[in-house]
Amino acid sequence: MSSMIGDNIKVSVFGQSHSAGIGAVIDGIPAGEHIDMEKLGAFMQRRAPGRNAYSTKRREGDVPEILSGLLPDETKESVMISCGAPICAVIRNTDQRSGDYDELKRIPRPGHADLTAEIKYHGFQDVRGGGHFSGRLTAPLCFAGGLVRQILERRGIYIGAHIERIGPETENRYDPAGLTKEDLLLAGKKDFPANDPLRAEAMMAVIEEARMDQDSVGGIIECGVLGLPAGLGNPMFDGAENRIAEAVFGIPAVKGLEFGEGFGAAFMRGSQHNDPYRMGEDGSIHAVSNHAGGILGGITNGMPLIFRLAVKPTASILKAQDSVDMKAGENRELCIKGRHDPCIVPRAVPVVEAVTAICIYDMLLDIEGRG
Amino acid sequence: MSSMIGDNIKVSVFGQSHSAGIGAVIDGIPAGEHIDMEKLGAFMQRRAPGRNAYSTKRREGDVPEILSGLLPDETKESVMISCGAPICAVIRNTDQRSGDYDELKRIPRPGHADLTAEIKYHGFQDVRGGGHFSGRLTAPLCFAGGLVRQILERRGIYIGAHIERIGPETENRYDPAGLTKEDLLLAGKKDFPANDPLRAEAMMAVIEEARMDQDSVGGIIECGVLGLPAGLGNPMFDGAENRIAEAVFGIPAVKGLEFGEGFGAAFMRGSQHNDPYRMGEDGSIHAVSNHAGGILGGITNGMPLIFRLAVKPTASILKAQDSVDMKAGENRELCIKGRHDPCIVPRAVPVVEAVTAICIYDMLLDIEGRG
Amino acid sequence: MSSMIGDNIKVSVFGQSHSAGIGAVIDGIPAGEHIDMEKLGAFMQRRAPGRNAYSTKRREGDVPEILSGLLPDETKESVMISCGAPICAVIRNTDQRSGDYDELKRIPRPGHADLTAEIKYHGFQDVRGGGHFSGRLTAPLCFAGGLVRQILERRGIYIGAHIERIGPETENRYDPAGLTKEDLLLAGKKDFPANDPLRAEAMMAVIEEARMDQDSVGGIIECGVLGLPAGLGNPMFDGAENRIAEAVFGIPAVKGLEFGEGFGAAFMRGSQHNDPYRMGEDGSIHAVSNHAGGILGGITNGMPLIFRLAVKPTASILKAQDSVDMKAGENRELCIKGRHDPCIVPRAVPVVEAVTAICIYDMLLDIEGRG
Amino acid sequence: MSSMIGDNIKVSVFGQSHSAGIGAVIDGIPAGEHIDMEKLGAFMQRRAPGRNAYSTKRREGDVPEILSGLLPDETKESVMISCGAPICAVIRNTDQRSGDYDELKRIPRPGHADLTAEIKYHGFQDVRGGGHFSGRLTAPLCFAGGLVRQILERRGIYIGAHIERIGPETENRYDPAGLTKEDLLLAGKKDFPANDPLRAEAMMAVIEEARMDQDSVGGIIECGVLGLPAGLGNPMFDGAENRIAEAVFGIPAVKGLEFGEGFGAAFMRGSQHNDPYRMGEDGSIHAVSNHAGGILGGITNGMPLIFRLAVKPTASILKAQDSVDMKAGENRELCIKGRHDPCIVPRAVPVVEAVTAICIYDMLLDIEGRG
Repeated sequence: MSSMIGDNIKVSVFGQSHSAGIGAVIDGIPAGEHIDMEKLGAFMQRRAPGRNAYSTKRREGDVPEILSGLLPDETKESVMISCGAPICAVIRNTDQRSGDYDELKRIPRPGHADLTAEIKYHGFQDVRGGGHFSGRLTAPLCFAGGLVRQILERRGIYIGAHIERIGPETENRYDPAGLTKEDLLLAGKKDFPANDPLRAEAMMAVIEEARMDQDSVGGIIECGVLGLPAGLGNPMFDGAENRIAEAVFGIPAVKGLEFGEGFGAAFMRGSQHNDPYRMGEDGSIHAVSNHAGGILGGITNGMPLIFRLAVKPTASILKAQDSVDMKAGENRELCIKGRHDPCIVPRAVPVVEAVTAICIYDMLLDIEGRG
Repeated sequence: MSSMIGDNIKVSVFGQSHSAGIGAVIDGIPAGEHIDMEKLGAFMQRRAPGRNAYSTKRREGDVPEILSGLLPDETKESVMISCGAPICAVIRNTDQRSGDYDELKRIPRPGHADLTAEIKYHGFQDVRGGGHFSGRLTAPLCFAGGLVRQILERRGIYIGAHIERIGPETENRYDPAGLTKEDLLLAGKKDFPANDPLRAEAMMAVIEEARMDQDSVGGIIECGVLGLPAGLGNPMFDGAENRIAEAVFGIPAVKGLEFGEGFGAAFMRGSQHNDPYRMGEDGSIHAVSNHAGGILGGITNGMPLIFRLAVKPTASILKAQDSVDMKAGENRELCIKGRHDPCIVPRAVPVVEAVTAICIYDMLLDIEGRG
Repeated sequence: MSSMIGDNIKVSVFGQSHSAGIGAVIDGIPAGEHIDMEKLGAFMQRRAPGRNAYSTKRREGDVPEILSGLLPDETKESVMISCGAPICAVIRNTDQRSGDYDELKRIPRPGHADLTAEIKYHGFQDVRGGGHFSGRLTAPLCFAGGLVRQILERRGIYIGAHIERIGPETENRYDPAGLTKEDLLLAGKKDFPANDPLRAEAMMAVIEEARMDQDSVGGIIECGVLGLPAGLGNPMFDGAENRIAEAVFGIPAVKGLEFGEGFGAAFMRGSQHNDPYRMGEDGSIHAVSNHAGGILGGITNGMPLIFRLAVKPTASILKAQDSVDMKAGENRELCIKGRHDPCIVPRAVPVVEAVTAICIYDMLLDIEGRG
Repeated sequence: MSSMIGDNIKVSVFGQSHSAGIGAVIDGIPAGEHIDMEKLGAFMQRRAPGRNAYSTKRREGDVPEILSGLLPDETKESVMISCGAPICAVIRNTDQRSGDYDELKRIPRPGHADLTAEIKYHGFQDVRGGGHFSGRLTAPLCFAGGLVRQILERRGIYIGAHIERIGPETENRYDPAGLTKEDLLLAGKKDFPANDPLRAEAMMAVIEEARMDQDSVGGIIECGVLGLPAGLGNPMFDGAENRIAEAVFGIPAVKGLEFGEGFGAAFMRGSQHNDPYRMGEDGSIHAVSNHAGGILGGITNGMPLIFRLAVKPTASILKAQDSVDMKAGENRELCIKGRHDPCIVPRAVPVVEAVTAICIYDMLLDIEGRG
């Protein structure tokens, strides 16, 4: 199904940009998991718009209402406990301006799903604000991922991400073999989720420049997972790579994915890329490098799991673009109005963490059982 | 499940490198599809070892026996017809040398799944020749993909791939907006599946150099699909990108995937990356460029579908490597013997085409129905 | 997943008896399906409580709010059109009396899931009103099924059901070979869904007698489907029988299922049970009887599809019952208070139709494709 | 998929009655499970034809060849150990008489899937011996179920079945609350799988009478499971009932299923059907009766799990039947030749046990995890 992810848990996302509400149903969370709702809200805030100069000003009242599946912990304020039933959370779309969507139905925006949706849904799709394709649908994903993230942290599993590149500006990658929890969680604490303040300045300047040019810019997000047990995942089509891949391409604007050295492996020799093993003093085996990104044969090896995602530039730009009027059957110049993020990458960082959390927990339940 | 792929059809792969046989069960192929077995054999030959100087000399009697699901066409030699029941094909492992696998159980090969399999399967895994993780399992994948490929071609859908890079040597990418069927199928007709003979020479030289150094080398494969209807795929987690991604990471040694501009999109502005639309003289709409790789919002737009895969260097190298003796609990130097492809990329090209064919057909059945 | 059904569409049900809301997400309804919301409301009313003397008096404000997936038809009042995105409908639980649930946590009600839920969810389950096990969860099922039912009717496929038995009192079964649309839809138009008014009186008397005895009573529901194309379903585990079976056992209190002659087949000879074929004057083939219930080898044969469900007596009875106090660790007599349906069968009739509609449409999409 | 069953393990069955071979792929069996191949063979023998006077004389060389997934235990003859890779077993169809199948293509046999297959597969189906619909496909199911059964027995879970009815003749049902392992496994040790020798005689006489009349007869099989932990299964659509139901309707000729009291519940009062709880001396809770058949709310309660299946009379009878010639477009009398079981029930008993074993183990892995 299109808007569902997971084997052991199922996260089912619903809603359109301008429907009455959006939300998620999470089926399969075992009973008894305690969720700190304030912490979950704080995680969701990392994705919320209006956080910095570069994101849209649309106010989203992104406080989810819990319809089912979580009961209040009577002993602790702001804590809820899963009861084993599917969890449904709804976020209202309060800021639905009526607007004129006639143009949207006639003139597909380049880089958006307008034309493909028109073909697939024969004109019945909800075009308002991109409908079900809207980036707004990542809010319930952050709810689900933020919730699962707390469960993972109780098991000592941490997920973090940072911006590695915006246009030409980059910052250092994670140290793949020596990644620490502090390094991993650093960017998530910042308004602009890069680790190095100076590099962050340079990246922000690139975004600002694009904005001034009525344009947008893309980037690369690097994500890491620490504390994973070795032995997660499976050979062939159900490996850790396959499952993460299936999920992260569900994040709007993601166009590439690589694990460990990824595309860099194409330039390497086997003697460079293979990660040699050494015996620790305690008798444990470890790899001395981590070009594999923590996965061999689809199965985690206990090293940090590391991957990178290519994010394309925001499709909505103020600059005039060539398009067509499907009704009139003629070429048209399109000028998109309104406020749009000139770079979606910073807000995508928590979404990447959220989707990764869902994947990782889903894989963990392969081993732990679903209860 | 680990060794299964597909929603509408299910391809289930079984076997280990040195088990009695390997094979695939393909459930869901509609009845009445005619399969030219000679053509299928020729496709499988493209993957077979010993085809050129760079591949292993192990002879594989890769002629599959059809156990079920296909009936002979009484009117045409070498043609079989699907009867609607699951198709099972078995390839015997004739070349099983008994060998001494004791070392394999003790000393995990860097870059292989030996250690992760040991952890996951608690020592019960089949270590001979890599067991279920062996590249040999791509033979039944080529059977399944080659079969499906014929069905797709009858619908005017063509899949091709070529080597874009081996180490530092590259050749031109496909023209993403103007790709022709001839360009697409060119490399598949050659012993070394690159389009440009001069560039092929340079790439082969890189492989030979690695071989002489008792080492290996990686590369990049580019794959294209022509003739796809617009409207295939779905939003979010069931998009064309997600489904291809889930499948291709099942090919051994794949560590990266990008669609269209992919990681290059990180460097681009929206005004560059967006593909503008124009109205054709016949009233049809087309994009004038194809940075999206044929997919917008998870749904095909009728342009060529294009993606690239990063393939890591062959993990088996003759050079001595650092490893550990798990039984003795001490560091060990490991020397892998035998013949191994110094570069897996050429033989992976038909495998990429095969897995892509399975994915594309599976998506097509979303629309066509399963019968 | 526990609260999901369907292969081509996914109906995901959420909520507990006393959570803020209950509802369903329906993913996979093709775009462009027109839904008459008044007709849907009328179908849901058939299940609503308080309809006759025998059902509970709890008022359920069962008017679902559409959060997503349906857009208003601008040309017709009370009509909505699917837009291809997941449809989410929410029903508020307005009548949540706080109540004292301490006893419910301690003393499991015989015949209910209280004890099994306690074991499975380790005491974290929502015990109020039966939580996620409540019959109230059939309301969103009726929403989903009622919606799908309209789509089926546009294709000429009709689903109906009637009460065949309450305790010792029965009415005639459908004529399996000669079932008409009028016969099929008759019971659904009545307050008490049996076809024969006299038999209905007798059945109601049995229910009233049970109620007077502070007891409850079970029954049998017969369901028929007309207008199904031949060729739906599949052999072995994906047959029409398997898929209906998997779904209908999701209706609370269902403990048995039989197709066509069902258990009666055990008494028959092959020469009696086999349905002979005859050639119609128009060259079409039909069976002259329908002991198979419209399904052979898991595949529909174009005859009416007919099955029957055994529904156990309502577990909640006013009579004192033996149970245990799990906290005190001692035997206890349990007296359940409040109003409970002395017979759940009448209200289960539309639920059976709803779940059947979901199944049938899901199978139909196998052939039609998901768009 | 049609010929696959299971969520945590996937059993994929392939083959037609007269294809080169039939078999099963079992994906997901954890590594390290020891399988006694002799014991497995003995279990498969219970289903083999020619065992008693009432079954067909076709000799099936039903010794499966293990192609993958099991390695020999070097310390014990006839023991194999799962290695974590998919297990593939193949049974050759040695007794393929060429025969004349022209009539089979033209004249559909009443009670068989001939006509529905013709419609679904447009004439491309394999008609020889019923093709993929043949009861012969239950042999690989017995392989898979027999293998899994050994794993369950190591966990103290036992599955047994017996014939409760053949035509008018019955024997006692299991004692639902007091079922012992001895009772449960008794029938499986006999040539004719009923518990009571006198009742078995009576049933055999009914079969013999049907045979003499060139006819066939149906029956009822009762199946029990002992040793199940409480807490298996889930609410709504993923309950123990749903999963067993989905699977057992995959057994050819099954037309009805009931759990516990099943259809008998329709006649009962709640005060009779509810199973009261009592506290044991050791502080454990037990039900004093078992009308629920061991399942409440879709979840096992630790009591014996009990269900019954209605099996229709063998469709192949020697008596002349009315059918049509589809090619000539006219009515025809059909006389089926050859040897056919006049009653399929005795050979179906181990098949029921096998399919139940697959289901139960699949549910158990929900809790244990897949490793």
